[in-house]
Amino acid sequence: MIDSYELFYWPGIQGRGEFIRLALEDAGAPYVDVARRSAREGGGVPALMKLLKGGGPGPLPFAPPFLRRGKLVIAQTTNILLYLAPELGLVPEGEPARLTAHGLALTLADLVTEAHNVHHPIGPGLYYEDQKDAARRAAVSFRAERIPKVLGYFEQVLEHAGGRHMLGRKHSYVDLSMFQVIEGLLYAFPATMRRITKTVPRLLALRTRVAARPRIAAYLASDRRIPFNDNGIFRHYPELDRAPVKPRTRAT
Amino acid sequence: MIDSYELFYWPGIQGRGEFIRLALEDAGAPYVDVARRSAREGGGVPALMKLLKGGGPGPLPFAPPFLRRGKLVIAQTTNILLYLAPELGLVPEGEPARLTAHGLALTLADLVTEAHNVHHPIGPGLYYEDQKDAARRAAVSFRAERIPKVLGYFEQVLEHAGGRHMLGRKHSYVDLSMFQVIEGLLYAFPATMRRITKTVPRLLALRTRVAARPRIAAYLASDRRIPFNDNGIFRHYPELDRAPVKPRTRAT
Repeated sequence: MIDSYELFYWPGIQGRGEFIRLALEDAGAPYVDVARRSAREGGGVPALMKLLKGGGPGPLPFAPPFLRRGKLVIAQTTNILLYLAPELGLVPEGEPARLTAHGLALTLADLVTEAHNVHHPIGPGLYYEDQKDAARRAAVSFRAERIPKVLGYFEQVLEHAGGRHMLGRKHSYVDLSMFQVIEGLLYAFPATMRRITKTVPRLLALRTRVAARPRIAAYLASDRRIPFNDNGIFRHYPELDRAPVKPRTRAT
Repeated sequence: MIDSYELFYWPGIQGRGEFIRLALEDAGAPYVDVARRSAREGGGVPALMKLLKGGGPGPLPFAPPFLRRGKLVIAQTTNILLYLAPELGLVPEGEPARLTAHGLALTLADLVTEAHNVHHPIGPGLYYEDQKDAARRAAVSFRAERIPKVLGYFEQVLEHAGGRHMLGRKHSYVDLSMFQVIEGLLYAFPATMRRITKTVPRLLALRTRVAARPRIAAYLASDRRIPFNDNGIFRHYPELDRAPVKPRTRAT
């Protein structure tokens, strides 16, 4: 019998943990979402904090998500996916395919960091409310330059790969991560995304296909899928999804 | 005969490419820093742009650095290190050690992104001069919270590992990357770093030891080491390394 995977991540948000959840769900793998279990079952945030404060044999992780399997504790979202994908059948065989997948996953992770930076440009230690003006400016740049550029890149990769899967003929965790990023952007920046729909048709079709995968569809309909909210990475602040409002000038 | 490694990165900055250069130099591996070669030798930025615009068999990389070896093109700094380290003898054997190393490298890469964000909080599309006020605020948060927290974490990892190497008994690319981050922070935030010297003694000693490794010392003294400058990730803007200046109030 194999140990089940234990995912450690904040219980109230999709966040970076969602990229791991989607891979485990798509593969139908047994896993425990530790911090979402009750304290009585050994879960909750205290269980997460305990591991974060040291206790494993190797270096402690800096931040969630991390994955435990037996004695192994793996830190960082993309590192966890790198480890899981071959076991879950979510990446083609061979080192070149795995390096390509990982490179794409890392580029997606960079975009996720940028999406977070939009509502927290000054720093994670301040509330959004205390950095709203900078956020408004960061959002203009993100919407006008970054979203089109980065999604344009992934659209091109998908086209180059034949249009169906990010890595070509085979479904992989990169498709799942791509789905999550598109979902997040559609939630956070609906007006912006409406305007670029025509430029990324393959990515939007990929998103639809991933959502229709039986296990993913079941997961998305379950209460295991935490709804998007204003504590996560992708946040819908309407003021960050609009053209900057110019100050009204009064005649005379 | 093996193909030599070809590194593609911007020729005028250390940037993210420096993490790769340090690994190759420390191992004494043969490599070509393509964009620093002359156009006559097939180098220069055009050679880099050519690959970036497509031309390889797999997906094109989103941005430099990327590494080519024969037909393989690997994107993303940490992915390149993941690939190179076993070949260069810069990571202990076995999957657990490699996952641990990669997790630490990814956490360092996050800090590098944050260090860049300090002078470009609004976005990469604007000049520093056009986001100076936000940068000043971001720098306060980075200096007061992030540097102590993240370096404190790495200090703890190093202590836990015995104090000599990030991964315990063996030198690895994580030591080299750690060196580069400390170097960068010392260059960009000398006043801030002076204040926290006593809290990260092991990291500072590690930095000294890495700098004294014969191949690294030779590299640092050579013109292959590009000096830090105001186009890179770590930039020394004195106004970002000081306590915020309060507006003077006039006694009337």
